[in-house]
Amino acid sequence: LTIGDELLKGSVLNTNAQYLGSKLTHLGFSVTGQAACPDDVPAIRKKLTEFLSRSHLVIVSGGLGPTPDDVTREAISSLFKVPLVFSESQFRCIQAHYRKHSHHAVPREVRKEAFYPQNAVPLINRFGIALGFFMNYGNGGLMIVLPGVPRELENMFEALVGPLLKRHFKNLKPKPKLVVRMAGISEPAVMKKLGKDFFEDPFDFGIYPEAGEVSIRLYAESSQIIKKLKRKLKKQLNAFIYAYGESSLTETIGKILTRRKKTLAIAESCTGGLLSSEITRIPGASRYFKGSMTAYDNSVKSSMGIEKALIEKKGAASKEVARALAVNIRRQMNTTYGIGITGIAGPSGGSRKKPVGLVYISIAAPHHASVHKHLFWGDRLQVQTKAVIKALEYLWQEIR
Amino acid sequence: LTIGDELLKGSVLNTNAQYLGSKLTHLGFSVTGQAACPDDVPAIRKKLTEFLSRSHLVIVSGGLGPTPDDVTREAISSLFKVPLVFSESQFRCIQAHYRKHSHHAVPREVRKEAFYPQNAVPLINRFGIALGFFMNYGNGGLMIVLPGVPRELENMFEALVGPLLKRHFKNLKPKPKLVVRMAGISEPAVMKKLGKDFFEDPFDFGIYPEAGEVSIRLYAESSQIIKKLKRKLKKQLNAFIYAYGESSLTETIGKILTRRKKTLAIAESCTGGLLSSEITRIPGASRYFKGSMTAYDNSVKSSMGIEKALIEKKGAASKEVARALAVNIRRQMNTTYGIGITGIAGPSGGSRKKPVGLVYISIAAPHHASVHKHLFWGDRLQVQTKAVIKALEYLWQEIR
Repeated sequence: LTIGDELLKGSVLNTNAQYLGSKLTHLGFSVTGQAACPDDVPAIRKKLTEFLSRSHLVIVSGGLGPTPDDVTREAISSLFKVPLVFSESQFRCIQAHYRKHSHHAVPREVRKEAFYPQNAVPLINRFGIALGFFMNYGNGGLMIVLPGVPRELENMFEALVGPLLKRHFKNLKPKPKLVVRMAGISEPAVMKKLGKDFFEDPFDFGIYPEAGEVSIRLYAESSQIIKKLKRKLKKQLNAFIYAYGESSLTETIGKILTRRKKTLAIAESCTGGLLSSEITRIPGASRYFKGSMTAYDNSVKSSMGIEKALIEKKGAASKEVARALAVNIRRQMNTTYGIGITGIAGPSGGSRKKPVGLVYISIAAPHHASVHKHLFWGDRLQVQTKAVIKALEYLWQEIR
Repeated sequence: LTIGDELLKGSVLNTNAQYLGSKLTHLGFSVTGQAACPDDVPAIRKKLTEFLSRSHLVIVSGGLGPTPDDVTREAISSLFKVPLVFSESQFRCIQAHYRKHSHHAVPREVRKEAFYPQNAVPLINRFGIALGFFMNYGNGGLMIVLPGVPRELENMFEALVGPLLKRHFKNLKPKPKLVVRMAGISEPAVMKKLGKDFFEDPFDFGIYPEAGEVSIRLYAESSQIIKKLKRKLKKQLNAFIYAYGESSLTETIGKILTRRKKTLAIAESCTGGLLSSEITRIPGASRYFKGSMTAYDNSVKSSMGIEKALIEKKGAASKEVARALAVNIRRQMNTTYGIGITGIAGPSGGSRKKPVGLVYISIAAPHHASVHKHLFWGDRLQVQTKAVIKALEYLWQEIR
């Protein structure tokens, strides 16, 4: 149960619901419902009553802040007819937080955040201000209440809630799980390759196409079934599988380059630094990534040693310029591999011969350079994102 | 009501709930509830019954796909005790879609996606496969059912649902709204500057701190109140307000640079292309953005004319190197402004003197260059993101 007017109005994205769903599923829970509820005592009480009556575990987040609209703790204390009591320990954390991050004393209204219902057990929040808490209900039920700030909720889940759930629900058995990640194949093509035979055993199957990649998530009752499914997947889809588990394509590439002691440089035009930022999000990227150039303006392309005449003759969005970007950046930065991307991200700048979405991607390796032509569908950011994913896919194919 | 096991398991992020919440609020609806529900006929019927009994409008999304777990249309037809009927128009769209995007005929199981409950009116989906539909219920109530693929849902909302809502709910009056976006100030500081007087009129107030920025969203009954609030906000917070409305800081910068015919180049180290990609996400960035360099490896910094001796003496993460990055890239790419960023994004690479999170940001303008030192808190991506937002803020302060 995620609480907050901002969730209903769509002012913020509900990442907590996804985070909690994923963590709980992984721990072996079957998540049967999620709701967002306004900052309103009767509405919260009604939803809580519904959720408590039909679940072994209810996790509540949000509405624990200092402003008058934050009423989650009041709603819970009124539902259970118990007063709110003050946590000295949390207040000391709040004081420490204010000493560290601000030069002011703790404001009066913030004291509120150290209160919890008398029938609950406090969960000290060392990552922020608002106290969390949990309580038992009914016959073995557990309700856990956490602050809505995603970073605090996540940190508290890792440090406190995970261990608490394992203690409380003794028979909790994480379901055997298999995550398979693929690039360069579409969802219907995956389904076709798998065929009907794949589904003979009982298991829980999810396939998620996302921006040029496809992942499959399976949960089964036994690890024997998981092993069997993994063998089948490998047999049918090995050419497209880049990872078993949660590793992203960029992380997979990082691992391969690190292991082989190879290096990478990038020259991008229409993707404007997006590929470079994808690569450098990964901790340890400095082991294999030397640098990149965003040659947005043609004068910058020329300064990279791409002849003006070539750009004029073939156009900035051409296979020749893509290849020159990849080959030149590889040479300039003295790396094993170079990637060049050029194209028309739109919304303007397209023509009949070179429409918006046209992108050339080149991979330069020690002894050869390849160029791939694509026509991507979508708005500017979609074209940029798809080009970046395709470039990662080609690099992976080159180095795998 | 968003339907799908993948939402409860946290395999995908529920962006539809945010999109719909934001659109409906904007149209003048008060969104009182949101829930995610598994792909299960009894569960969907139960939730639908609850939602239909307490709302004038229910929007349902998801569970209209071709696989056996997609049961939304079956759940609705069983709830209203009506059969499913076939839409020839949608099937023609499906055939056209397959002709365009695939070389196969329409698979048997996909036919299912052209069906709708007999008491509903079809909403033809020209952006994908699955038919949407709507129906009246109770005393003036409206239920709308849309596919779960975000792009299709959004396109159908724009093209069909928005107009339908305006036709059906004649008295719908978008509430006067004010969005104010600020940089360089924290949420508590905003609240303190506003003081209690600000809240004397009745209105609906939301404040959203997000990664170094703060936005305020207000809804009031009259545009007089909104005007008064805007005056007060401007008086108290003018130094921090970069936009009234939904414009992002990057867009605001783009507008100013375009209007003044100024140009920009970037040299980044620890942010690895993230600032450059932020800038080039904006359509029309080519009018003011010439290019960037990600100087990740020190050899690349040297190739930018930053002396090896300087890097060795002061360290790559130093105010001198930040300034040299900004000044040199400005000169090399021949632009009005240059930005240089260098620091330690972590998780490794920090020391006692130069800890993880230390970032120097420099802005080079025609006659001067400034350098700002920061110690950002958080993981690698948080440090990178915060550094990028601070750099945008300093650039905006320079050019505003």
